[in-house]
Amino acid sequence: MDLKKYIWDVENFPIDGVTFKDVTPLLNDKDAFKYTIDKMVEYVKQKKANVIVAPEARGFLFASAVAYAAGCRFVLVRKPGKLPREVKDVEYELEYGKGHIQIHVGDVRENDNVVIVDDVLATGGTMKAIVDLVQQEKAKVNGIVFLADLSFLHEPELFKEFDSKSLITY
Amino acid sequence: MDLKKYIWDVENFPIDGVTFKDVTPLLNDKDAFKYTIDKMVEYVKQKKANVIVAPEARGFLFASAVAYAAGCRFVLVRKPGKLPREVKDVEYELEYGKGHIQIHVGDVRENDNVVIVDDVLATGGTMKAIVDLVQQEKAKVNGIVFLADLSFLHEPELFKEFDSKSLITY
Repeated sequence: MDLKKYIWDVENFPIDGVTFKDVTPLLNDKDAFKYTIDKMVEYVKQKKANVIVAPEARGFLFASAVAYAAGCRFVLVRKPGKLPREVKDVEYELEYGKGHIQIHVGDVRENDNVVIVDDVLATGGTMKAIVDLVQQEKAKVNGIVFLADLSFLHEPELFKEFDSKSLITY
Repeated sequence: MDLKKYIWDVENFPIDGVTFKDVTPLLNDKDAFKYTIDKMVEYVKQKKANVIVAPEARGFLFASAVAYAAGCRFVLVRKPGKLPREVKDVEYELEYGKGHIQIHVGDVRENDNVVIVDDVLATGGTMKAIVDLVQQEKAKVNGIVFLADLSFLHEPELFKEFDSKSLITY
């Protein structure tokens, strides 16, 4: 299936000069959505993961279905002020500025086999921070899966110490 | 299954005097998560829905898996500045202030049969706004499903003109 058909370019969003990849048409097509989730689940099973970790908000759009269909636990990475219990926090660079993200202490555990799920790989700043959080909690990053890799926005070997997969590359 | 075991009370979050229902322990238990999604899917099928609508960010945690497992389209309701194409916007009252939420014009369509999915029913302000957005787009609200109803925060007959279900009531 040609998933690129379901990802629309929106010019000058969220700021001038940026072309945004809008994944909502893919979510809004049940066959394209099912195909995407099934491909991610296949990867999660190959990596023998028992936990899916995903960042808000767009990571949740895929991670929930992947965790359900793969029979994994589902752990959230969120922006500050959203997770109510004790957190670990990491600062990171993102495409349009700086940010912090957090994980609940104890949500992933030593020897957990984690696959991280997100929609789009841009500069990779968010994903590096998520990897850092998972490793601080002593869980293993068995793999990283993206719907789409904007490969023109980062160096080619960005996650070379991990296994990673993108269903689409631009 | 007693889902309340997996929803933890966190006192004074996000502000003093509020007890927050933390659903992350439920997501982080694969059996409790599967049970929750399967119950929501059962409801979606009874309501003969073809589209799941859910608000960011916690609605996405359940809606993605429900849409996947029920074979429905998945349409997002988001805060301002998040949906990149033309939107409809509604102002609403929420538990701790005021907000706006938006839906892409055309994402739900005339004669779509919609079930709206969210995690917690508190005052109902957000859900009323979502219903409004779906109806402005001329789609039908066949049902509303929540993980948990904080029934002490709203009048009993809040959504009496719609079919609605909560897996848990406090």
